[in-house]
Amino acid sequence: MDLNSIETPALILDREKVQNNISRMESHLKSMHVSLRPHGKTAKNIDVINMFQKGRISGITVSTLKEAEYYFSNGITDIVYAVGIAPQKLDRVFRLISQGARITIILDSLAQADSAANAAQHYKTEIPVLIEIDSDGHRSGVDPDSPFLLHLGRYLDAAPYIDFMGVLTHAGESYSCSTAEEIRQMAEMERRQAVLCAERLKSAGIPCRIISVGSTPTAALSRGFQGVTEVRAGVFMFQDLVMAGLQVCSVDDIAVSVLATVIGHKKERNWIIVDAGWSALSRDRGTAAQHTDQGYGLVCGTSGQPVSGLIVSSVFQEHGVITHREGKSIILDRFPIGRRVRILPNHACATATSFDRYYVADASGTVVDEWKRINGW
Amino acid sequence: MDLNSIETPALILDREKVQNNISRMESHLKSMHVSLRPHGKTAKNIDVINMFQKGRISGITVSTLKEAEYYFSNGITDIVYAVGIAPQKLDRVFRLISQGARITIILDSLAQADSAANAAQHYKTEIPVLIEIDSDGHRSGVDPDSPFLLHLGRYLDAAPYIDFMGVLTHAGESYSCSTAEEIRQMAEMERRQAVLCAERLKSAGIPCRIISVGSTPTAALSRGFQGVTEVRAGVFMFQDLVMAGLQVCSVDDIAVSVLATVIGHKKERNWIIVDAGWSALSRDRGTAAQHTDQGYGLVCGTSGQPVSGLIVSSVFQEHGVITHREGKSIILDRFPIGRRVRILPNHACATATSFDRYYVADASGTVVDEWKRINGW
Repeated sequence: MDLNSIETPALILDREKVQNNISRMESHLKSMHVSLRPHGKTAKNIDVINMFQKGRISGITVSTLKEAEYYFSNGITDIVYAVGIAPQKLDRVFRLISQGARITIILDSLAQADSAANAAQHYKTEIPVLIEIDSDGHRSGVDPDSPFLLHLGRYLDAAPYIDFMGVLTHAGESYSCSTAEEIRQMAEMERRQAVLCAERLKSAGIPCRIISVGSTPTAALSRGFQGVTEVRAGVFMFQDLVMAGLQVCSVDDIAVSVLATVIGHKKERNWIIVDAGWSALSRDRGTAAQHTDQGYGLVCGTSGQPVSGLIVSSVFQEHGVITHREGKSIILDRFPIGRRVRILPNHACATATSFDRYYVADASGTVVDEWKRINGW
Repeated sequence: MDLNSIETPALILDREKVQNNISRMESHLKSMHVSLRPHGKTAKNIDVINMFQKGRISGITVSTLKEAEYYFSNGITDIVYAVGIAPQKLDRVFRLISQGARITIILDSLAQADSAANAAQHYKTEIPVLIEIDSDGHRSGVDPDSPFLLHLGRYLDAAPYIDFMGVLTHAGESYSCSTAEEIRQMAEMERRQAVLCAERLKSAGIPCRIISVGSTPTAALSRGFQGVTEVRAGVFMFQDLVMAGLQVCSVDDIAVSVLATVIGHKKERNWIIVDAGWSALSRDRGTAAQHTDQGYGLVCGTSGQPVSGLIVSSVFQEHGVITHREGKSIILDRFPIGRRVRILPNHACATATSFDRYYVADASGTVVDEWKRINGW
């Protein structure tokens, strides 16, 4: 089956590019002497995770309990659920633990610590816990300099059935950097803050075995991970236009694309209309503030090569409008009704979430497999 | 089961509000003496469509062939597939027709007309066809004043096995209006252009039985539908913040919301963090250009009443950050860890697409049913 016989819109995964992206990150982190805990939220699929070298990864990271259940049912036992725990989700976590999974939860408040301690006591079952650190003011996490860090650490260390493991942080602000050097500085801040927190805890007599950091930009560009025990990242497996804009990868490294069909033209406006709208591409505009705004995606031929200057500039539920980035004239005859195009996404995680499966293509564009995705919660 | 026992994030549908929204539109269009062809793309669920009065609707509209197959398998035979046909999708359309469905396709080019005529000839099966008209420069469709309209009409009228039915248009630009009066003007333009096209075709001796118009804003606010045979609309069943911003409904009419759980606070920044990010709420920012920017959604208590000034102001994959719209201080103790909130969406279609089911609640907030959604293609 080739790309012209798949119904559109469809999500295409270039297997070789995924393998290259994975191997590159594996080599990079190996050379930095730090272990890798890939984030399962980008792929939401076990076949992709199985492309990592056996024994090289310390386990995986997940963003939903549905991912945790899915990856565990596919043989992965060591799982960090890297979203601050809601008390109501603890029963589901302990169900997995009782089945043999090692699910590490993260938290940044006494209320969460208290709920976790109560649930662990109730189930008389140990649960590994990490304190989430806010290394960049991006989102959640404990202020690294706060007295509260030690207070929370002491509480967790003392609580029966809580296996306090250490600290975790995510420099999400690295997505907003504008140069590789800025990302390197962000990576160093992420590393330093996590290590600092662990040192503060250790100085207070609280053991801290895990120091977990990561985001694709900081994982890819960091100059060193001294003191860090593991790096988490997900997007790098597929890469995307945001990462290319950050110089974390090249456009040619992007392994995921949306296959679409031309369904119309608007000659007087110089538009090509395709059957991939926001329901396929997502409304992510992650490149809007970057040097090169890629609209809702960069347009390629079926070979995967970008067509000079063409982007998806607007989206509706099931329609996408392709225009030239600089308003130049498009030779519409080159894109007749029925012609297929591939659209590279701004944000791989967001676009992939629109689809329930990947059509896995080899380098020649032959579809060699179909891999399911585990969306939802 | 009440809203506190559902795992989050979850999509909640208020059954009474849906029924009221449907009844209001039914009465409105009945008083205008025009029939209603609800759009199935918002609900993607048969139970919602079954809330329309039996015999009052002329059939439904769909945005994907998956919806067409689903609604047909649930007893609806008269279906307009309102996205310009891709030649590759015709086999699937004819499969449905051979099973007894009446699938009307739309198109705006000779290439599409030619593909449809060839396929119809191949299957020796009649297919109903509408010409899509561009009444507002929004997206697809034939220019209403163009000679091409008659050329295409003649081609379709003459083609064996093509049952040429008439014209269809969608005033999607009505979403960008800023006053009710502007929407009324847009509705009149949508009506006038569609009727004008039908008159041009009829004058050229081409019969034109269907004149189909619609969008929720124009359907709700139009002063009259003279000459129009049917009105299509979908969002009105659920309503959303964009529609409320357009004065098409009140915030209290919005029937769909995302149930989320508080998982953190950032006291120094005055943030509440919930477990609903872009993967639940979507990245739709449809209210960004309206008078009141609702961020990624308006925050309500579990009763469904908005909490003064609180919106979701930023989203990550599985995190949403709630802030006060005007930066006022939030009493975080009112939103302890584990507390549930309901978030009203900017765009009902986009947010609902994130979920595979509705939890259907009655007015007291008791969950009385679960209804599946048919996402994808």
